[in-house]
Amino acid sequence: MTAFDTVIRHGTIATASETYKADVGIWNGRIVAIGEALTDANETVDATGLLVLPGGIDSHVHIAQPSGPGIVMADDFESATRAAAFGGNTFVMPYCLQAKGQPIREALKNYHTLADQNCHIDHSFHLIIADPSEAVLGQELPALIADGYTSLKVFMTYEDLALSDLQILQVLAVARESGALVQVHAENYDAIRFLVDKLEHDGNVGPYFHAKSRPIVVEREATHRAISLAELVDVSMVVVHVSNRESMEEIRRAQQRGLTIHGETCPQYLVLTEEDLKDLGMEGAKYVCSPPPRDLASQQACWEGLQQGVFSLFSSDHCPFRYDDVQGKQPPNARTSFRWIPNGIPGVETRLPILFSEGVSKGRITLNQFVALTSTNHAKTYGLTRKGSIAIGNDADIALWDPKRQATLTQANLHHGADYTPYEGLEITGWPVATMLRGKFVTRDGKLVGGKVEGRYVSRAAPFPGKGATSTAA
Amino acid sequence: MTAFDTVIRHGTIATASETYKADVGIWNGRIVAIGEALTDANETVDATGLLVLPGGIDSHVHIAQPSGPGIVMADDFESATRAAAFGGNTFVMPYCLQAKGQPIREALKNYHTLADQNCHIDHSFHLIIADPSEAVLGQELPALIADGYTSLKVFMTYEDLALSDLQILQVLAVARESGALVQVHAENYDAIRFLVDKLEHDGNVGPYFHAKSRPIVVEREATHRAISLAELVDVSMVVVHVSNRESMEEIRRAQQRGLTIHGETCPQYLVLTEEDLKDLGMEGAKYVCSPPPRDLASQQACWEGLQQGVFSLFSSDHCPFRYDDVQGKQPPNARTSFRWIPNGIPGVETRLPILFSEGVSKGRITLNQFVALTSTNHAKTYGLTRKGSIAIGNDADIALWDPKRQATLTQANLHHGADYTPYEGLEITGWPVATMLRGKFVTRDGKLVGGKVEGRYVSRAAPFPGKGATSTAA
Amino acid sequence: MTAFDTVIRHGTIATASETYKADVGIWNGRIVAIGEALTDANETVDATGLLVLPGGIDSHVHIAQPSGPGIVMADDFESATRAAAFGGNTFVMPYCLQAKGQPIREALKNYHTLADQNCHIDHSFHLIIADPSEAVLGQELPALIADGYTSLKVFMTYEDLALSDLQILQVLAVARESGALVQVHAENYDAIRFLVDKLEHDGNVGPYFHAKSRPIVVEREATHRAISLAELVDVSMVVVHVSNRESMEEIRRAQQRGLTIHGETCPQYLVLTEEDLKDLGMEGAKYVCSPPPRDLASQQACWEGLQQGVFSLFSSDHCPFRYDDVQGKQPPNARTSFRWIPNGIPGVETRLPILFSEGVSKGRITLNQFVALTSTNHAKTYGLTRKGSIAIGNDADIALWDPKRQATLTQANLHHGADYTPYEGLEITGWPVATMLRGKFVTRDGKLVGGKVEGRYVSRAAPFPGKGATSTAA
Amino acid sequence: MTAFDTVIRHGTIATASETYKADVGIWNGRIVAIGEALTDANETVDATGLLVLPGGIDSHVHIAQPSGPGIVMADDFESATRAAAFGGNTFVMPYCLQAKGQPIREALKNYHTLADQNCHIDHSFHLIIADPSEAVLGQELPALIADGYTSLKVFMTYEDLALSDLQILQVLAVARESGALVQVHAENYDAIRFLVDKLEHDGNVGPYFHAKSRPIVVEREATHRAISLAELVDVSMVVVHVSNRESMEEIRRAQQRGLTIHGETCPQYLVLTEEDLKDLGMEGAKYVCSPPPRDLASQQACWEGLQQGVFSLFSSDHCPFRYDDVQGKQPPNARTSFRWIPNGIPGVETRLPILFSEGVSKGRITLNQFVALTSTNHAKTYGLTRKGSIAIGNDADIALWDPKRQATLTQANLHHGADYTPYEGLEITGWPVATMLRGKFVTRDGKLVGGKVEGRYVSRAAPFPGKGATSTAA
Repeated sequence: MTAFDTVIRHGTIATASETYKADVGIWNGRIVAIGEALTDANETVDATGLLVLPGGIDSHVHIAQPSGPGIVMADDFESATRAAAFGGNTFVMPYCLQAKGQPIREALKNYHTLADQNCHIDHSFHLIIADPSEAVLGQELPALIADGYTSLKVFMTYEDLALSDLQILQVLAVARESGALVQVHAENYDAIRFLVDKLEHDGNVGPYFHAKSRPIVVEREATHRAISLAELVDVSMVVVHVSNRESMEEIRRAQQRGLTIHGETCPQYLVLTEEDLKDLGMEGAKYVCSPPPRDLASQQACWEGLQQGVFSLFSSDHCPFRYDDVQGKQPPNARTSFRWIPNGIPGVETRLPILFSEGVSKGRITLNQFVALTSTNHAKTYGLTRKGSIAIGNDADIALWDPKRQATLTQANLHHGADYTPYEGLEITGWPVATMLRGKFVTRDGKLVGGKVEGRYVSRAAPFPGKGATSTAA
Repeated sequence: MTAFDTVIRHGTIATASETYKADVGIWNGRIVAIGEALTDANETVDATGLLVLPGGIDSHVHIAQPSGPGIVMADDFESATRAAAFGGNTFVMPYCLQAKGQPIREALKNYHTLADQNCHIDHSFHLIIADPSEAVLGQELPALIADGYTSLKVFMTYEDLALSDLQILQVLAVARESGALVQVHAENYDAIRFLVDKLEHDGNVGPYFHAKSRPIVVEREATHRAISLAELVDVSMVVVHVSNRESMEEIRRAQQRGLTIHGETCPQYLVLTEEDLKDLGMEGAKYVCSPPPRDLASQQACWEGLQQGVFSLFSSDHCPFRYDDVQGKQPPNARTSFRWIPNGIPGVETRLPILFSEGVSKGRITLNQFVALTSTNHAKTYGLTRKGSIAIGNDADIALWDPKRQATLTQANLHHGADYTPYEGLEITGWPVATMLRGKFVTRDGKLVGGKVEGRYVSRAAPFPGKGATSTAA
Repeated sequence: MTAFDTVIRHGTIATASETYKADVGIWNGRIVAIGEALTDANETVDATGLLVLPGGIDSHVHIAQPSGPGIVMADDFESATRAAAFGGNTFVMPYCLQAKGQPIREALKNYHTLADQNCHIDHSFHLIIADPSEAVLGQELPALIADGYTSLKVFMTYEDLALSDLQILQVLAVARESGALVQVHAENYDAIRFLVDKLEHDGNVGPYFHAKSRPIVVEREATHRAISLAELVDVSMVVVHVSNRESMEEIRRAQQRGLTIHGETCPQYLVLTEEDLKDLGMEGAKYVCSPPPRDLASQQACWEGLQQGVFSLFSSDHCPFRYDDVQGKQPPNARTSFRWIPNGIPGVETRLPILFSEGVSKGRITLNQFVALTSTNHAKTYGLTRKGSIAIGNDADIALWDPKRQATLTQANLHHGADYTPYEGLEITGWPVATMLRGKFVTRDGKLVGGKVEGRYVSRAAPFPGKGATSTAA
Repeated sequence: MTAFDTVIRHGTIATASETYKADVGIWNGRIVAIGEALTDANETVDATGLLVLPGGIDSHVHIAQPSGPGIVMADDFESATRAAAFGGNTFVMPYCLQAKGQPIREALKNYHTLADQNCHIDHSFHLIIADPSEAVLGQELPALIADGYTSLKVFMTYEDLALSDLQILQVLAVARESGALVQVHAENYDAIRFLVDKLEHDGNVGPYFHAKSRPIVVEREATHRAISLAELVDVSMVVVHVSNRESMEEIRRAQQRGLTIHGETCPQYLVLTEEDLKDLGMEGAKYVCSPPPRDLASQQACWEGLQQGVFSLFSSDHCPFRYDDVQGKQPPNARTSFRWIPNGIPGVETRLPILFSEGVSKGRITLNQFVALTSTNHAKTYGLTRKGSIAIGNDADIALWDPKRQATLTQANLHHGADYTPYEGLEITGWPVATMLRGKFVTRDGKLVGGKVEGRYVSRAAPFPGKGATSTAA
């Protein structure tokens, strides 16, 4: 009997803190040895000149999620996870969206049905709490968290999703008791309504005015408020998709006074600006997401957030729509107002190449920071105990990167369900040439490998001990 | 014919920037001369050893305002303005409270009726906007502002008063167009509800828990939010009754980025703490106000706010109730929960002596800062064009202070309608020995002077040019 | 006998806090009455349409000061004070420069000799401490301070002037004991030497490289250090000629932690930039001063410092040289290196029009802030008890301003001894049409009035009580 | 032939980012495998229940360094490295002190002679630049840096060591060109002289007044200045032994504006305070070090610095003297003034247990932070390419820790040359039970292992590419 199913030889391993040359020995889907000159394997993969990184974990993706009347998301689980795998990922965390009045278990069942047997890589679900009824808060959530759905999301904007501060406090209190982590989409809904009404009243209805309807102060205010609510309840929180300096500084201030507030940013805030929304006709709709991309100074702020540790998570906020649909097929017509353009852009496949190229290759961050920001920190933050690092005992979820490889991002070469990429034409240095899930290749040299989709649902640990335990102990 | 009706001789005049010895000549209710050795007057007042200051303007008082089921405020206009005059004031700005559904004009009519012929000193009204309906926003408010009711107040807490962020934005937009100034009571209502429920659930119902139900973060959050809303609309704002460092720093940050945010603090935040609410039995109810007094570090922060100009206004937030009532006469009984204790304490008579003694006499602020904080800045901020300074052309609203006089604050010597003072026993150095309204003594040597109440309602100018003018100009 | 020597009628008076219409009555050189319709005067001045402001006090000017081998300052006391008077000033505070080894009394005698009978306006002297020997610290300084020379200056740069930190501490300690105020020129000498050597080594010798030889960090460092030394000794300080945001923020941080640090900025930091030093050939030498002008963002920072009260003093740092001299007459030749260009530009005549026009007329500051920044605060800070405000008992040092008058700054119309102005061509709105010293016109309608120079030396009070007094009291 | 010389089995490995169970395979002094169930070794070490950590690297120790007239350091290289090994360390970085006028090569030769064959663990040297002559700057330093002495130290205080700002700039410029890293001891010498003279003058001569002679502002000022000088030269820097919040915040501010400033703190700033210097008689001398320990708030600030990443290095600043000597044997007598007490305390043996116990065991930092702060970051910062982590290819420098073991720090059980420990009586949870250098035990179960001292001198890589390379490239 051989010692290993597979050995990856001659590569350079990087973790969140170290970079060194070594071979990786895999057995039964897990990493069981890291060493010099590992041999005695059924299969040997030559990684000469390649980086051996933990597969990317994208903890912020939307898949097959209802998005408004007549709007269909451009990706189902198969296409989204295929694209993710080609982009160097081995794990995604999509959302389970509760409808008003709907038991979360019921919503979850639907998502599980859609995902089962259809995912190329592993996954778990965050629970969007749209209706924190007494039953949800008192019974469903504690049970679901105990079952391994250990992260929740609350929205401070969007007509059907925005919770009141009281509701957010109630969700946070449950999270604190049960050890779950709450993500927050921080934009002030009332302020946006006020501005949208005003813009439409003044006849400013093109895609560009989407950006003007949610300026930085709208995001900063909600960020400060969300942090304050977490502070009041004494619980951790993730502020997702931060787009600018002012919001970043709110998170930093919170961290400096000792709060555990995690910050996340996304590729769109590093390489796009609101000027992109000005593209001719409806072209600007290709860049409509919330918060909107800002300006060059905001990009710089987001880089500083990544460099200085204010942001520990770099995700895609993949939320794909078809530009064809936006062009006119949906009612109501997005041409009449930016209000009707669905908010979201595709990004699960391009997240890692963009950060590698703009970050590592251009010297803004180290390779170790890249690994931490794209994989390790996601695993730690969200309770994935066997993912996120090249370390003994972990699942052999691995991406092989060619740090020298040049590429140009273009829709023709991507695998997602959207019919465009907002990053069309972006030059990239550094590319994920293969992805391995639990020891088996999913993609290799630009092709899918094997005939089956083997991605599994993974139950997660509580990110921190629920504080309810102590109070009920006596 | 004599040159002057009255000359105040040999006193020391202080303005917001200068202190000098000179006589003041008064004719027909106004200051017409300041100079050396003014003579030729019908009446000569000897102010040797005294300070000649502009009468105090208290821009934050509640008089005869409905305060909940069965609760009667302890002061009507006569008693409140009498107490104010004894406390060195010549002007008060009480509130006109709109009830839900009520036209503001109707509410105003009631308050005017209560005030007319009953005030010992001059007054105007701030308008509390409890129901910003389309009619109020679109018609009533612009007209009222044009009529000289140029300041509004919005609440972010209290069941019957709290406005949504959208409503606040709408009020701010009207204020911006019309040149009115908006005051904001900044506490997060949802957070307070959450905490009150929790405290009551845990059996923590005594007066002290009032303080615990609205911790600093609740005020800081609302302060930041209010400022953000003003920032969005690009309009000035007054954040009233600031109680602590964190909120003060939010205001300072706003000022430093160029916003015109005025900060106000009050005596209770300089000399009381939440420990006072712990007094035996219901005694703590005597100190229940919102925001609550905090701790010694917060007192220090409020002093710094005054010293460094973050706070330009020092008001009383006079809101008097009778302790007798709180003790048990009202339904529901405040003994069952701090929730039912009316929020507010008396202070219109003690505001100036406390700041003079703790501030000027103890060397924390200069006499000029005292004048600015208690009179001049109120006139400037709220559009009182002929008040707030010893200057030619102004109304002869004057307080004579003996800076050496020692006194002890005690209920027995006060003139307000409340049956206690929260400052019982406080030692004071510096006392207003006389108050003069438009050239005539109101109080002198501890007694009311004359047989009539001569206080008038004063219409105010817009604090800044309404920006609506420019947009309608074309 | 008439009541007044002179009455200024129908003008608008502004103080640091108030603006109002009134007449000013002058008798025996002092302001003895302010009032409506003052009559009964020997002379009546019609100020209809004019502002009646306290004469400008320029607390930072260099006159007839030795400035290096072969370099002669372009102004003597006569020309400097004439120019100052035309610029709306009634008081200047030039420096008395101690040479190494020289008793300060001796240096003072020279300056007094030069100034006596030659000044059109009043003056006092700051003492530059170039050699803080034991005799100077132990005997001369306490005696001089007691005699009314209550302000000192220390330099952190310049070969012949830079004091060590230990020497600065010793000077500060004397100032603290005796109640004197210390000004500091904050630039790090060693850093400048390092950079000058490097620039010259690299052949970068034109005037523009003067700016490159003392970048912002050099000033910020010294500012923080100077403040720290004052903090250690627990004494007040003035940081003069602040040029940029970083240094401004150091001062603000100090003020916020409760220190009494006064900040000063100058016209060159509001309207010039280092780009001006790039002018063709040696033209750039016309803008060489230290610290150098920076960039537009720094100008904005200096405006914020003025608006927000971080800077309480606005001075000229008038230090005039003749461009003719710089062009080649002096040895060593300034053409060989910026190192030999004397540091300083003329400004005593243009300071007030620039701030009025760019500040008041353009709406950046109020008229009251203008008065405070250019006159009142100088008097208060430096112990001039009878100057700096239109107030009873003060010297009648008055400037009459026409706020509507348009002018263009140009050398041909100026009265200083320099042969250029760095502000050539600057358009001005608002002009000082007359200046009055102790009740008598010095300039009026663009002409000198009277045949005599009547400026006097004025002894100053200690800006604060010397803390030495208390320790020796017992 | 066996695969491994040694295998450490069943332990829990921790790196700066991961914690996992695995065996470690060692061959020829290096780590060659990490994996599950490694066998086939000459020697097997059972680490059940133990942590397998990289050996501690103490980058701040003083050994056998001349310290003033008649003062002998309490440790030579043998005793210091023995104590270090017992304290869980496998590497120390002592200083080579240049005397004025001495070539550094000569000083180095002496230290090498003292260290060779006498060290139980590996070592390298930082070079203290006491005399940056032209020869040193122009020739010696570039050559020494190229030879692997890639870190320098400059002092801003101490009579014989303090460099001027110009000298510091010159050293920084050389470091920048050659890729060396400069440490700075940041205290303002002039300020200390000023205060020492004052304290002695007032008769305050006991050990406690050592703390009063160098208050926080003295350290903060020098920290800001040092950072400014590095900013000017555009080079990295390490600010060593930071003791308080204000200095920590200066470093944080620098990091936030993008500078690479490394911060270091030490055990004395986490568990001692200046109150310790008040111990009876001369007992306080046992705690005399510079900067001095401060207060509880400063301890908290230092913890925050470690938690939030402002400090990336935790060192001992081991600088041992014998209390017996201080008691009276040395001339001049330390009893006459704190000025004569040698500055420094022992700590190389207690550094790691204190941080483990107070940090990891008490939940203030994670185990991964501990590894980073005590080993990994030191290797990365100072260019030790094969040290600092349990990773393939690295030297097998390993400490085995029992995280549950209780101990009490006491002089009787320590191995250093000092005759006391300032931490006498401190209770510890977590202890280094064995230390392994390049695969061989140095200490095990409280005993030295083997008969030879096998520590070697290690040449270090440049921490960053020298920027001189680029300028000479053309």
